[in-house]
Amino acid sequence: MPSERERIVIIGSGASGLPIASQIRKETKEKDITVITTGTHIAYSPCALPFVLHGVIPDFESCIMKTPADYEAVGINVLTQTTVESIDLETQRLETTAGVIPYDTLVIATGSYPFMPPIPGVDAEGVCVLKTIEDAQQIEKSLEGVENAVIVGAGAIGLEVGSAMIARGVNVTVVELLPYVLPLILDPDMAQLVHNHLMDIGARVICGAAVSEVLTDEAGKVRGVVVADEEIPCQMVLMSTGVRPSTKLAKDAGIETGSSGGIVTDSSLHVKVGREYLPNVYASGDCVEVIKDFTYQRTISPLGTSAYRLARVVADNIMGRNSYLLPFTSPNVCVVGQLQVGSVGLTTHTAKSSGIQTTSRVGSGPSAARYYPKRHVITSKLIVDNSRRIVGGQIISDGSGVKCRIDTLSVAMASKMRVDDFAHVETCYAPPVSALVDPLTLTAQSFFDVC
Amino acid sequence: MPSERERIVIIGSGASGLPIASQIRKETKEKDITVITTGTHIAYSPCALPFVLHGVIPDFESCIMKTPADYEAVGINVLTQTTVESIDLETQRLETTAGVIPYDTLVIATGSYPFMPPIPGVDAEGVCVLKTIEDAQQIEKSLEGVENAVIVGAGAIGLEVGSAMIARGVNVTVVELLPYVLPLILDPDMAQLVHNHLMDIGARVICGAAVSEVLTDEAGKVRGVVVADEEIPCQMVLMSTGVRPSTKLAKDAGIETGSSGGIVTDSSLHVKVGREYLPNVYASGDCVEVIKDFTYQRTISPLGTSAYRLARVVADNIMGRNSYLLPFTSPNVCVVGQLQVGSVGLTTHTAKSSGIQTTSRVGSGPSAARYYPKRHVITSKLIVDNSRRIVGGQIISDGSGVKCRIDTLSVAMASKMRVDDFAHVETCYAPPVSALVDPLTLTAQSFFDVC
Repeated sequence: MPSERERIVIIGSGASGLPIASQIRKETKEKDITVITTGTHIAYSPCALPFVLHGVIPDFESCIMKTPADYEAVGINVLTQTTVESIDLETQRLETTAGVIPYDTLVIATGSYPFMPPIPGVDAEGVCVLKTIEDAQQIEKSLEGVENAVIVGAGAIGLEVGSAMIARGVNVTVVELLPYVLPLILDPDMAQLVHNHLMDIGARVICGAAVSEVLTDEAGKVRGVVVADEEIPCQMVLMSTGVRPSTKLAKDAGIETGSSGGIVTDSSLHVKVGREYLPNVYASGDCVEVIKDFTYQRTISPLGTSAYRLARVVADNIMGRNSYLLPFTSPNVCVVGQLQVGSVGLTTHTAKSSGIQTTSRVGSGPSAARYYPKRHVITSKLIVDNSRRIVGGQIISDGSGVKCRIDTLSVAMASKMRVDDFAHVETCYAPPVSALVDPLTLTAQSFFDVC
Repeated sequence: MPSERERIVIIGSGASGLPIASQIRKETKEKDITVITTGTHIAYSPCALPFVLHGVIPDFESCIMKTPADYEAVGINVLTQTTVESIDLETQRLETTAGVIPYDTLVIATGSYPFMPPIPGVDAEGVCVLKTIEDAQQIEKSLEGVENAVIVGAGAIGLEVGSAMIARGVNVTVVELLPYVLPLILDPDMAQLVHNHLMDIGARVICGAAVSEVLTDEAGKVRGVVVADEEIPCQMVLMSTGVRPSTKLAKDAGIETGSSGGIVTDSSLHVKVGREYLPNVYASGDCVEVIKDFTYQRTISPLGTSAYRLARVVADNIMGRNSYLLPFTSPNVCVVGQLQVGSVGLTTHTAKSSGIQTTSRVGSGPSAARYYPKRHVITSKLIVDNSRRIVGGQIISDGSGVKCRIDTLSVAMASKMRVDDFAHVETCYAPPVSALVDPLTLTAQSFFDVC
């Protein structure tokens, strides 16, 4: 009698769920794989959505990379528009809107949802969030006739959508509760460059103030917001105030969540129930609590790249390779108007709040030789701890050159490199593509400038 | 009675000589600094010259960054058109065409000169080299009326000038003695991409063959070259067959040179005479023998970036900080037509010739999300040794993204990172500027792909 095939069920079709399914299928045909999602579209890039709204990506279809049929064709069963109602860890069965689904191995990759601040009027027509393709399509539809929009929250998505709206002729006001834009990834000095650019492209930016109310007209449509004592008229509000891990399903099943709100796992991503980590139940993606490098704080890292990193560990372990998760520096980059903005590791603020004393330097330099006709200004900030290890970096360019420099810093930080060593690393040079001394190297060297 | 000021004399005004002068002057006004050069122009970028010939940099003046007067203004004495005829290490004096110049501390930064293969006709009118701004001006002048040109040597400068000439409507034939283009920095598989591109933009490329003779007309002007049994008609020949360290002056003074031809130094860059390293005489730049990382071979590293790295060590030591030179991976990038081509560390060939067993992988991926309208193909090759340390990398792009990725590899190699760790380093992502998984990461991951 042949042994029964292992049934792997993955809840969630995002940047963790699908890569796990694909990786396992690439390696073996001997397992059944089912992916369950409440959505209609799968395998699209949520990070692309602001750029579709901007018009630089021609349409929403373009950012859908695969269909359920593409997965079926390689033997991955995808159930769309299907909600998992409960997980029974004892009997290893899911109650779903498509019936009971048994599993041998379960992956909880339920992702995250947009946080909505509890303010009056937040449910009004014209108040949007941007998380799914359906959200973006809703925004696209609602944008018609919008003259003024308010973006609540000056994070990456808020600013990317804000600059998209400006490009489409909408008057945009950005309201950020914290004292500066991109507060989770930048320090105030670097944030000022983004703030200035937002103003240059025509945005109004209000920091250090909350939206206390969304005002509506008689039809229940948004007509403005209240910020401090001011009424700002608008026909659309984008709530871009962060995400929270989607863990209700896991919690209801008795799976532990941590102080960050994310699902607690061991470093192999097995979930925890009571005192035990379940060998056949994994969590992956935005819903997982991970460890932040250098501070060892528990956090979630809701980036596509983080989801993919988690997915690799889960897939490795399901395939029997003991793979484990390292702490996160969460390198990231966003494009706001003409600016590229990136960061990795700790900000001065996050370091300080974890009791890590830091020193930092900011420097600027050109992306190409200074006599070369086309070049950009690369401004970089490096943050080092008491042992002069690089614990954080922030880079802004008015054109290009951020993504790879953040990656370079990420490699340096993964090696626990000291800034002194980083400043002496050889870099390459040709006039069209660089200055003789890279701007990032100059900033590193400024830590031990003797004059 | 005040103590006499230390007299620092630097022979050479290139990418090592001038930075040493500037760094010392930035730190102190208490030393006399004199820079001596045979040239007229100083402080220009030799790497820019092909791009002036190409027309993308408007003129030669643009790439001159400072004049002797600029240096005089900060108290650095620059003697141009002055030849040092001999160094007397005993009396600490130089015989020069401007008279006798005494020194307390001497820096020999005499650079390198273009190697001319000893073939008949090599001295003919129309045979050029490209090293100095005067050389480039000569080429610019000679180019008028040239229909066909032959580039001898498919190194970076040869190919950059070749593609500049093609852009100006000249028929170009590249002749390389070794079996493939860019043989010092690429392996044959990666070189093929450059070869194909050269053909795409209209060049003829002949590899594995030598120019045995330069043919001249009755007036002594170039009329062709002989390659194997073929006569190739041309009105200009660029000899781009590498450089040799300029060490005659040093050798005549009794200073030791090594198997590479470069001046032997200790790791603080003091020169060697007999069994002794002279505490007050340094060598810096292209004329110095350095150590190649991973193989520990003696070599010269004739790159602007290497010259600058050497300069920092010399300046540090002159200022009393004990600074020492690490081995070189010599990261480099060049721009050939629309291609950016970079490399760092060992090629498969240089590893093998040093007895290092290597494994390599080649992979390609997009520079932006695959649904993003503008993107390039990044092809990368990674070379690892038996302990899976990365010992070399080669990257080619049809648009951008080479320079910083080579730098990323350089950081990884400086940290002696294993490819397994490199493949797990977090990288950042936003659709306009990257794919979710960086192409370089994909190549690293392919070393342990299980399928």
